[in-house]
Amino acid sequence: MSDAQIIEADFTWVDGAMASGVQIEVDDSGRIVAVGELKKPTTHRLQGRALTPGFVNAHSHAFQRGLRGKTERFGASSGTFWSWREEMYSLVQTLDADRIYELSLLAFREMLAAGITCVGEFHYVRHAPGCGDFSLDEAVVRAASDSGIRLALLLVYYNTGGIGQPLDAAQKQFATSSPSEYWKQFDRVAAMLDSSTQTIGAVAHSIRAATMADIAELHAESRARGVVFHIHVEEQRREIEDCVELYGQPPMSILLDRLEIDERFTAVHCTHTDPLDMELFIGRGANVCLCPVTEANLGDGVADVPGMLADDAHICIGTDSNSRLCMAEELRMLEYVQRLTEERRGVILDEAGACGMRLLGFGTEAGARSLGVAAGAITPGCWADFAVVDLESQALVGWTPETLLDAFLFGAGREAIAGVCVGGQWMETVHGD
Amino acid sequence: MSDAQIIEADFTWVDGAMASGVQIEVDDSGRIVAVGELKKPTTHRLQGRALTPGFVNAHSHAFQRGLRGKTERFGASSGTFWSWREEMYSLVQTLDADRIYELSLLAFREMLAAGITCVGEFHYVRHAPGCGDFSLDEAVVRAASDSGIRLALLLVYYNTGGIGQPLDAAQKQFATSSPSEYWKQFDRVAAMLDSSTQTIGAVAHSIRAATMADIAELHAESRARGVVFHIHVEEQRREIEDCVELYGQPPMSILLDRLEIDERFTAVHCTHTDPLDMELFIGRGANVCLCPVTEANLGDGVADVPGMLADDAHICIGTDSNSRLCMAEELRMLEYVQRLTEERRGVILDEAGACGMRLLGFGTEAGARSLGVAAGAITPGCWADFAVVDLESQALVGWTPETLLDAFLFGAGREAIAGVCVGGQWMETVHGD
Repeated sequence: MSDAQIIEADFTWVDGAMASGVQIEVDDSGRIVAVGELKKPTTHRLQGRALTPGFVNAHSHAFQRGLRGKTERFGASSGTFWSWREEMYSLVQTLDADRIYELSLLAFREMLAAGITCVGEFHYVRHAPGCGDFSLDEAVVRAASDSGIRLALLLVYYNTGGIGQPLDAAQKQFATSSPSEYWKQFDRVAAMLDSSTQTIGAVAHSIRAATMADIAELHAESRARGVVFHIHVEEQRREIEDCVELYGQPPMSILLDRLEIDERFTAVHCTHTDPLDMELFIGRGANVCLCPVTEANLGDGVADVPGMLADDAHICIGTDSNSRLCMAEELRMLEYVQRLTEERRGVILDEAGACGMRLLGFGTEAGARSLGVAAGAITPGCWADFAVVDLESQALVGWTPETLLDAFLFGAGREAIAGVCVGGQWMETVHGD
Repeated sequence: MSDAQIIEADFTWVDGAMASGVQIEVDDSGRIVAVGELKKPTTHRLQGRALTPGFVNAHSHAFQRGLRGKTERFGASSGTFWSWREEMYSLVQTLDADRIYELSLLAFREMLAAGITCVGEFHYVRHAPGCGDFSLDEAVVRAASDSGIRLALLLVYYNTGGIGQPLDAAQKQFATSSPSEYWKQFDRVAAMLDSSTQTIGAVAHSIRAATMADIAELHAESRARGVVFHIHVEEQRREIEDCVELYGQPPMSILLDRLEIDERFTAVHCTHTDPLDMELFIGRGANVCLCPVTEANLGDGVADVPGMLADDAHICIGTDSNSRLCMAEELRMLEYVQRLTEERRGVILDEAGACGMRLLGFGTEAGARSLGVAAGAITPGCWADFAVVDLESQALVGWTPETLLDAFLFGAGREAIAGVCVGGQWMETVHGD
């Protein structure tokens, strides 16, 4: 709770343009109630600043921030996603509640410094080594509360160590024994949340980590409860091969056959998804979450983004492993990899041919849709979640209202973020810590 | 000229590692004279800071900083390198000496803020509209002097508007009428330079912009003078097609046949170079300059970096269009695009399997080699050119001496750069301007 506010920055991103003279009225619950030329006394005048919707990070594993700079040395030959996973599992084995709190707080604070105001935390390390009490759930929620970021906690069901395989040692820290145990703990965690900044969603980690029967049961219950449902899908070719071997079809295909997929469903990665499966998936109104920097770091492969766009996909963005936290870099990376492989400029475009505008939507509104949070736009009914852009930033010199968005997305980074606002609470960016 | 200095930071990058307790002795000419545990009284103690060699930017067109945020809107369909070039030519037509000074100063200052201490400025807009007096040469030199960056001015010969084509209107601002006129002005510009921070090299813009006879003549003279020689090579497929049509072979092939290419030669881009030509080129000891962010922005295509590495290429890095200025982002972009297309982690590795170490070499020593400048390493004989890394940066939290370099290159950006030193002159980074 905070006081009601009338906010005015030099420029505010409203209806797809940088507008001046715009006031934003925020009520004491932290929601936007009016936007426009309100002619009310301004309580918060942001000089030399522009406001955009805060970025929405639809897919994060916060604790992996602890791997920064630690996974880039290789032996005689290259590494793979799977060799990286071994390094990640080594970190997992050091995580108790204190350590996951510490790493999560670090990641969430760094997200805020990068203009990310809402995170979908795909939380799967739920137990300290040797324990089975879900004590890490509370630690992650507490880290989010203490950081001030808006949290969509995506609570993960993990039950098999590969398709038809038992859990290995590190994976025991991820374990939930059954869907009924899952929902029991889900309700316990839901009761811990601060409703003004925290929501919860359901997750089956991947087709590797749960039986199809369990995935179907979890998803049906998530629909009954009206909560979002996320799952990793087809990031690596080996997952597809294993799935075809056991089930006779790839993960996306089997999910489409067995589940009532709708707009509350998000498939994360889809790097190697068959175009026809993708078309069907998008046709259900579901979301695709791409994680450009992590997918690049892990050498996943190049997703068929032009195909997704042709079917008018809802594409949102995750920082995933948090190897780097910069939403502008995520967005341009996504576009740039497509430009390189297509050998043309401007692949991800809106109807008017604007690349930055479309990308901004991925990093804001589409993320909010995937997480089921009223955010991602500066409009009445949404939470007052903003990124504050420093108009004096050296990277932006030469901007005009028309070029500012593209100058930021293609030419700047988190050094141009001066702060954020989450539900009416202002935080200044400190790049040093 | 400055006073002699004994510098000590918490950590200093020496011999491929972050070492503590290292002093750097710099003489009053701005050169490093000793590095190690010198046991001398420290004059400059940098607390909470690490020093790396300043980044060397081997290929820049500083004035293109003026396009930031202005080339990312498209019509009904995508753009290309060639449609982008039209936008760039429109900017060129507004450039007089004042305007190119202003844009160059902006770009050079932003480079310094990003830890780049030396720039190879591939300078081809040499006249104001309607003039032919090379008045823009002095403006660029002055901008470099006023910014404090080390300049390797790469003075460009441009004489044809395409292979066998006359110059079009915008290109007239690039024109030099003959090699003899070129060298006359080369000598005039060389006389303007400050020898402690400025050098000069020779350039034929590309096989599009000069006849083979002129390129051969210019290159032979550059060798006689012992200056470096740079040229754009095979960035776009159309250049190759046009060249094959007129000369019966691609640009790299004809350059290899006609020129005595040696270690002072740098080919910029080589995006579509035939592997056998590349092997021959590398065999001559020559340099390849890649411009990862610009090549991505322009949709050039994916270069065969593994092939270059197999032949032990000298690869350096340019920020080229300066659409974004961040050397860490350039370096990880280069590696990441390869990871995505190869579907493996760790493509660019040194002998010990270290990715960041190899990348750092591209962004420092290899650039200095390409520009013929004594820089790129913290070692006696080199200029005292450093990037100052802020060890308190939020993006680096969790660093150890072993992980710091990778944490910076993969996990941070210019927000972690606290300042630079160029030839013994210290500058603090101001991210706002």
